[in-house]
Amino acid sequence: MFKLKHLALDTLREHVIVVHEQAVRSGNLGFNPLDRVRVFALENFSSAPREVTGVLNFCRDTLVASDEIGVSEEAFHDLGLAEGSAVGAELATAPRSVDLVRAKLNGKRLDKAAFASILADVARRRYSRVELSMFVLGCALRRLELPELVDFTHAMIEVGEQLNFGPGPVADKHSIGGIPGNRTTMIIVPILAALGLTVPKTSSRAITSPAGTADTMGVLADVGLSPQRLYDVVRKVGACIAWGGALQLAPADDILITVERPMEIDTEAQMVASILAKNKTAGATHVALDLPVGRSAKVRSIAAAERLGATFRSVADQIGLRVDVVITEARGPIGRGVGPRLEALDVLAVLRREPDAPIDLREKSLYLASRIIEMMGAAPVGAGYRAAQQQLDSGAAQRKFEEIIAAQGAREFPAPAPFVTAFPSPADGRIKEFDCLEIARVAKRAGAPANITAGLRLLKTVGEIVEQGEPLFEIHAESRSQLEAAKSYAVSHSELVVFGF
Amino acid sequence: MFKLKHLALDTLREHVIVVHEQAVRSGNLGFNPLDRVRVFALENFSSAPREVTGVLNFCRDTLVASDEIGVSEEAFHDLGLAEGSAVGAELATAPRSVDLVRAKLNGKRLDKAAFASILADVARRRYSRVELSMFVLGCALRRLELPELVDFTHAMIEVGEQLNFGPGPVADKHSIGGIPGNRTTMIIVPILAALGLTVPKTSSRAITSPAGTADTMGVLADVGLSPQRLYDVVRKVGACIAWGGALQLAPADDILITVERPMEIDTEAQMVASILAKNKTAGATHVALDLPVGRSAKVRSIAAAERLGATFRSVADQIGLRVDVVITEARGPIGRGVGPRLEALDVLAVLRREPDAPIDLREKSLYLASRIIEMMGAAPVGAGYRAAQQQLDSGAAQRKFEEIIAAQGAREFPAPAPFVTAFPSPADGRIKEFDCLEIARVAKRAGAPANITAGLRLLKTVGEIVEQGEPLFEIHAESRSQLEAAKSYAVSHSELVVFGF
Repeated sequence: MFKLKHLALDTLREHVIVVHEQAVRSGNLGFNPLDRVRVFALENFSSAPREVTGVLNFCRDTLVASDEIGVSEEAFHDLGLAEGSAVGAELATAPRSVDLVRAKLNGKRLDKAAFASILADVARRRYSRVELSMFVLGCALRRLELPELVDFTHAMIEVGEQLNFGPGPVADKHSIGGIPGNRTTMIIVPILAALGLTVPKTSSRAITSPAGTADTMGVLADVGLSPQRLYDVVRKVGACIAWGGALQLAPADDILITVERPMEIDTEAQMVASILAKNKTAGATHVALDLPVGRSAKVRSIAAAERLGATFRSVADQIGLRVDVVITEARGPIGRGVGPRLEALDVLAVLRREPDAPIDLREKSLYLASRIIEMMGAAPVGAGYRAAQQQLDSGAAQRKFEEIIAAQGAREFPAPAPFVTAFPSPADGRIKEFDCLEIARVAKRAGAPANITAGLRLLKTVGEIVEQGEPLFEIHAESRSQLEAAKSYAVSHSELVVFGF
Repeated sequence: MFKLKHLALDTLREHVIVVHEQAVRSGNLGFNPLDRVRVFALENFSSAPREVTGVLNFCRDTLVASDEIGVSEEAFHDLGLAEGSAVGAELATAPRSVDLVRAKLNGKRLDKAAFASILADVARRRYSRVELSMFVLGCALRRLELPELVDFTHAMIEVGEQLNFGPGPVADKHSIGGIPGNRTTMIIVPILAALGLTVPKTSSRAITSPAGTADTMGVLADVGLSPQRLYDVVRKVGACIAWGGALQLAPADDILITVERPMEIDTEAQMVASILAKNKTAGATHVALDLPVGRSAKVRSIAAAERLGATFRSVADQIGLRVDVVITEARGPIGRGVGPRLEALDVLAVLRREPDAPIDLREKSLYLASRIIEMMGAAPVGAGYRAAQQQLDSGAAQRKFEEIIAAQGAREFPAPAPFVTAFPSPADGRIKEFDCLEIARVAKRAGAPANITAGLRLLKTVGEIVEQGEPLFEIHAESRSQLEAAKSYAVSHSELVVFGF
């Protein structure tokens, strides 16, 4: 028997249990570090069994006493017991569903029930990071065929909550990501909402990028809305641009992403299931899907984009979602800013019709909006672009965006980052491309997205002719060491800019 | 700047760094939980840069103060600074070699330099558990062809220390594992040493099993020998049976195993590289390799064992090791005991020629010993068995075993486990097989190997005819709850015994 101790340790979706080494030895508990251990209430005050499973660490000092057991932040919350409660601890076995993951690794096909049991255990945080890695790599390396991917997506949807904004059609827009500064969502949503469409947009924070839509919107407004507040905002102004992370939509996906992120490998099936499940559970009926193609984008060729688009459409059909796949070209970041604050400036410039607003961001947003408008019948085919343009140029979209911000809760716009330096062009010539991945890495080294004012701002863009030594972009950082780290990375990775025709 | 704090937290080969959330926020450090963070000395007292990289956890209470940074046990040791030293912390990027792991996942062939750089980073604990999983699964799922496997094995050998007992030939013996109670090493080593051969045996502790040779030998003698003590013991008595874990032989392998273990999947290439690298770095020149084949063994068919044996031989040839692959049949545990103490009793019974000593353990040990004796030319071909038998039956092997124990440091033999229960046969009939995996799981639930007296003892063995309800085996445990857990597992997994002919 132990006394429960709350360790305010944030371990990002992996529960950690800490026991004193002495307790393990004298109690003959048979525990080893990294074992999976179940902690459970010894007093039976409610009908529901209170227990939590986590990964064991040994302690040799005073972090926990030998009659205590420490559990990390989220585990303590899940357990729902008071500090000092009497708890027991025992070795727990891996969830049964891990056997299904092994079957997948051995090349077997999984069915919907198998995915459902895996994802339910994942969502309850019963998987260790190694087991999560097994599942992600199993799906990545043992390609999922279409029916299997449909089953996976269905299971992803059914584990967790679903929002409902019906009975009418509900618009959504999604990009597969990989293009820095690609903040079209924040322009498309107010355009569509100004036209009277329902657009309850939920976005993620950055996963591998220097900013996600939720990070950039978070510069301007509160994005951490509860389901109730989200419904209120959408009822009031017809739209929102919120962070999806607090809503328990496809929660297994959020956990899988914690291991996919450091992997940085192509997990196409997961991407399809993840995006469609998020859209479906967020209550969408019609979705425009932005598939950027480019040498440094996630998809490298039009042929690959068409294959991926066909997969998206087939799975979407099976789960009752209308999807318009829009293949776009990417030869570098969209807009000028990379990083939350700098991207927000681009969005505001487009919505405010400022003369130096980035044209590429404006045009891409109008084009994607036009596809949704036509798909949803809000304008005749061929007239969608004009309808979108009217909402933007009349200022209606800007006003709608201000309504959304006010409804979510406005934030004060931050001052620029204190440390700024220019990156000189390594050569003379015409800029043919920026490498999206390398640009993202520079911005991340500068501190984005955690430091919201950090990132970079392009001074020259694709197609422009520059001289060696002329500044190509500014790096913004909140500390001198981050500025130096970003700049030295950029200098040693001059392939981040490609010259030519 | 932070003050270094030592957290006596054993995280099993993953370095953990703990920073107070407040410090991250006020210092604009741009850290997120699970980020990889580099901690480095700010005072330059020696030429070597003192730094360590680990996985970040946030703290919200008093585990570390906001001007402190906590590092876990092994990280603190690797850093080698005093508590309170001034250290800096910054985001670290993944080691460059992780790009090579991604290449492997994408189906590329790696060369020796690539494996060397991956394994050097693994050995320095620069890989997170997710990255370790990527490497293990990359090698498992993207099969390594023979030249690649040779490169992998070479790299495994060269990262770490090598023992040298030459110039004469040095014997070794290895089993691929999976068979409970298979403690032939502890009988073969004294037989060979009694014949005058040099047998510096280093073994592992249990990885997925209820006891490894090092666990069982650890019941009788000290097995945690430093390299110097190991050399001394071998010089004195010609042999040792030590734990290899403290010797830094193929250290990358020890770290890879921490993620392979919970995976419980077939990682054949890793197994070949791991075993041959361990044998080579332990100084062996001639190795007998036990490949048990059976329905519940690691290898399920003779054909598969022959393929695996051929792979072992081919790689061994390339790294300059003579290997004799011995395919053996496994229809259940070897001997009667499963678990450190109970297995040690079997070994002692065979060496002491007790009348009820388990015949299967005796015969398998003599057979494997004979193959090594003949391979090394210590007896003519066909005369090895007889030579081994003489050493055993004359008591020479027993005396040699006692010398080894005395040289390593004898331990007092433990009293039996306090809690014992019998498992009744679920049916009438002739025992055809025991399921090795299920038997191991029962013993592990009983507490083995951490509880050295826990495990099980077969009362009936393969070939015997039993009646329903008749005791098949005893379960031994050090606590009542473990006894109950093991018994209830056994009762609900009656497939652990197979009846028939």
